This record gives sequence, C-alpha cells and structure tokens, in this order.
Amino acid sequence: MEQKDEKPNCSSSVYVHNPHLDVLKEDVLYHFNLGTGTHNLQEMFGDVKFVCVGGSPWRMKSFIQYIATELGMEAPNSDYPNICAGTDRYAMYKVGPVLSVSHGMGIPSIAIMLHELIKLLHHARCTDVTVVRIGTSGGIGLEPGTVVITKQSVDATFLPRFEQVTLGKTVVRNTDLDPRLAEELLRCGGELGQFETVIGNTMCTLDFYEGQARLDGAFCSYTEKDKHDYLTKAREAGVCNIEMESSVFAAMCKLSGLRAAVVCVTLLDRLKGDQLSSSQEVLHSYQLRPQMLVGSYIKKQLKGQIGTHG
Amino acid sequence: MEQKDEKPNCSSSVYVHNPHLDVLKEDVLYHFNLGTGTHNLQEMFGDVKFVCVGGSPWRMKSFIQYIATELGMEAPNSDYPNICAGTDRYAMYKVGPVLSVSHGMGIPSIAIMLHELIKLLHHARCTDVTVVRIGTSGGIGLEPGTVVITKQSVDATFLPRFEQVTLGKTVVRNTDLDPRLAEELLRCGGELGQFETVIGNTMCTLDFYEGQARLDGAFCSYTEKDKHDYLTKAREAGVCNIEMESSVFAAMCKLSGLRAAVVCVTLLDRLKGDQLSSSQEVLHSYQLRPQMLVGSYIKKQLKGQIGTHG
Repeated sequence: MEQKDEKPNCSSSVYVHNPHLDVLKEDVLYHFNLGTGTHNLQEMFGDVKFVCVGGSPWRMKSFIQYIATELGMEAPNSDYPNICAGTDRYAMYKVGPVLSVSHGMGIPSIAIMLHELIKLLHHARCTDVTVVRIGTSGGIGLEPGTVVITKQSVDATFLPRFEQVTLGKTVVRNTDLDPRLAEELLRCGGELGQFETVIGNTMCTLDFYEGQARLDGAFCSYTEKDKHDYLTKAREAGVCNIEMESSVFAAMCKLSGLRAAVVCVTLLDRLKGDQLSSSQEVLHSYQLRPQMLVGSYIKKQLKGQIGTHG
Repeated sequence: MEQKDEKPNCSSSVYVHNPHLDVLKEDVLYHFNLGTGTHNLQEMFGDVKFVCVGGSPWRMKSFIQYIATELGMEAPNSDYPNICAGTDRYAMYKVGPVLSVSHGMGIPSIAIMLHELIKLLHHARCTDVTVVRIGTSGGIGLEPGTVVITKQSVDATFLPRFEQVTLGKTVVRNTDLDPRLAEELLRCGGELGQFETVIGNTMCTLDFYEGQARLDGAFCSYTEKDKHDYLTKAREAGVCNIEMESSVFAAMCKLSGLRAAVVCVTLLDRLKGDQLSSSQEVLHSYQLRPQMLVGSYIKKQLKGQIGTHG
C-alpha cells in the first residue's frame, strides 16, 4: 500500500440524510450553542479535515494543546478558547484543520453530539473528513495500557450492529469502521513503539456496571463465575475491549460518509478485576496514548499532503 | 392527607443489592473521584436527606446556590466547592442536608452516576433520602415553560418499563415513581402559583433526534405526518413530555428504596416544532422552574421537621 493510495481520488462530502433540513430557514445546533443564523459555519469550520472526539472535556482540551504543539501551530500563551463556551453540554476546540470535541458518556450523549457535528460539517461544506474517537475502555485479557483500534463494534451479544429506535420501531444499523484507516493507525502505533497497539473488536454497552458484568455496582445478581464465563465468551468472539460509544459512532459516521476509527486505551484487565484502582498518574499516562497515536497519524497525513500538493 | 402522614414512621436505609461489595477492601467511586479508602463518606455525606440531580453541571451549581439562599445556609462569598473537583465526569455540591449532582445526558450517563450515588449513600449510612431529578424536556401539547411531574416513565412504545441488559440478556425493570411525593410536589407548584405544573407520563428515549421523532437531525427517514401521528399516539397514551433519563432513574431508585420524583420543565411544544429557538433568556428562566418547585418542597419538609422534632 503506497502513500498515494491512502488519499481519496476525489473529494468526498459529509452527507446528511434529511430532506427537511433544506426547508429550515435557520439550523440551531442547540447543544453546541451554534447555528447557521448566528455563525458563519463555513468560515469557522470549512478547513476541518480531522475531528477527534472523546468523553471528557478536559481530555479534549489537552488533545488540542498536544496536537497544536505537534503541528507547530501553538496559540500565543497556549490559549485555546472553547468554541461552545455558551453551553456546558459539550466542549469544542480547533487548531488548523483539527477539531476536538467532547461527547460525554454513553450512546445517547455521543449521538446528540454527532447529529450536530455532522450537520455542522455539512453546513460548513467540509470535504474528506476523518473522525476518530479517542477514549478509555476496559480490556479483556490485555495488559492495562494497551491501545485497541476497533475492527468492529459489537453489541452485548457480540453482534456487529446498532439498534436505533425511530418512532417506536427498531432499525438495525451497520457498525463497520474503515479497515484501511485502522491499518494505518496500527502502523502509526508500531512506528511510535512506545506501547502495545492491537486491532480487535470492541463491545459497546449501555451500562458500565451490570451491562459490563462488573461485580462492584450498586446492584449485582450474578456470580463471579457468571462474569468470567460472559467475558470469556466475549474474548472468544474477538472482543478486546469494552466501552460505551463505539456502536452509534460507527453507525452514524458510516451513514454520513465519514472515514471513522475508534482508538481506546484499556485502563484495566476485566478478567482480573473491576475497579479502576491504579493511581491517577498511571491512568493519566494511559489516557495520553490514543492522543499520541492519533497525533502521529494526523501529522503524517498532513506532511503527506504537503509533499503531494504543497 | 396531613403533614405527619408525609413522614415515614421509621427510618429507611439506602439499599444496595450486591453481596460482592461486602468483600471489597475499598470501594473506589471512580467517576466521582471519591472512595471508602480515601474519604470518610459518613462524615462527608451522613446527613444528606435530599439529592437533586440534573444533566448540566452549571445548573446543579446554580441549584445549590439557590437552595442555600432559600434555606438561609449561604456560604461566605457564595463559594460552593465542587466535591468531585478531581474529575470532569460529574459535578457535586452540598449544602446542609441537600446534595446536588450533575449526570450528563442520557440513560448510560445517569446510570453510572446513580450506581455510584447509591453506593455513596449506602457507605455514608444515610436514611430517609429523597431523590429528585430536575431537568428539561420537550412537551407534547403543553405551553412551553410548563413543569411536568412524572407519574410513570414510559419507553418509546409507551410502556412503563426499563430494559437493563445484563450479561447479554435483557431484564425488564419497573419504572414506578413515588405517587405521594408527586402529589406533594404538585401541591408545591400550586402554592407557588408562578407557572403551570401538571402530573403526567414522561417518555424516556435513547436518542434526542430520530428517537424523539424530530425532523431536524442529521438523518430523518420519516415524514412530518409520521412524526405527528407518533407524538399524537404518545399524547393519547398520557405522555406529557419527552426526556432521556427518567426510566433508569425510576428503576434504580425503586430498587434501592429511595423516594424518587422527576420534575422537568418543557422547553417547547413538540407538536409545533423541533428546534429550541427561544432566546437563551427565556430558556434560562424556564430552567429555573423545577429548581424553584423542588426548593419550595425541601424548605417545607425541613420546616415541617423542625416543627415536629425541633
């Protein structure tokens, strides 16, 4: 696979699938506190090529500081204003072609963000956008600190699907991610050589405690053996890690024509325990790993572009 | 119904249902950045009688300031430190017997918070705790700004149930809320006389756009008529408003023996539109209403207690 093959041959748009948007006089992106009537979205976001999303607003601010330094685009006094400062639902930062957005925890929270992000990229007429979720997860049978690049996002029964309820009826959506992007990210991990990086399936659940077979929630009606049997079955189905956003992320990015990847570090090995009892320092250092990997990928892509088109 | 009947006859504990907790040496409440090994939870939280939860961290800070003033318990310089300052997952504030906690958006996000809140109240040996969710919602056929006290939380097919996935299998849980508490809150609303307050069913969905039949998401495969038919059916099933957390909130509070209520203001009438296009000032004033109502309830309860026992 040569470098030139990694670029799309023609620019690809961000698709919304909603005829009703055409007749809206103004589109209010309520949870971002942005809108087509109040902001020039094309001017603000038209150059975006990479969007990184993650649960924690602090982590997404730290990512924009990191990527700015990596790309030599530091702001004076390292000041990166929160573009969504008028709301506390999500935080958003931008430096050059990179946008960094927080999404909170769980499928509903990331889905609201993605609806508004996809509309934002559409209104801004962005093309050739790559979206990467950088997150944390529980690993299964992996050394804590391992970075997992998701091959397929699977549900609690290990099937690669996302169930969207629309007008009270369930629609099943595909959760495929871009296999070439995953391979490119894996290669970046190898080149960095600072931590273990693997490709595998990611289980996406609606709950952190009972939904992930933890023994330490407020409620637990199963035994330690039940837990181990379930996680072992997951492992046998190719599941490397468990988190709470990848399925709807994969489904929505696919529907809107965005190249997408999920890169999560494992904070613990769920076969050995449930509690996140590592020190804050260790957990913090793990959380930097997806940032470093995606940072290195973006840098490489932008250099490649400069080499080809600059 | 007399005042004395509103108090339980004996103190009731907060129940966890998890035998595995008994053998944990230390319980780390990771998303609060608190734990039994690092904090004296009984000393910090043993006197809590009212917990108010809501999506937005800003709103929950504003609530603690409001309730402190109402109860004459203002802190010097109105300084209310965030008890969960070491994390950005949730924010938590306390004044006297009132705890205020944010929960983010959606069922998974509030469920993580509730698991850790229930364990916190259990470790702190709290008794006779009342938990109220104060939130925002979309109304159906109600004047925007109406406050809805939830009778039953229903799913997208209008059934009063919450589906919890555990070890890949679905368990159905009851979403009943405390009917007497709902009536008491309704009475408080009437006594305040500053806005319309009603009791009705609340539909709880996993998605804000397609899941609530909005026409303004990134994707929409149904017509305006389909939307209206669906919302009309919801209205006929007694649904007054739609939000994204009440079902798991009701189910978990019931399981743990907490008196619970959901009080949400409607920000718009979904039969007339989908976008939140009212001014920030108007929306902000609406969001104060559940705070005022619950504040008045708490004040009354504490006065009643002083009258009886003081």
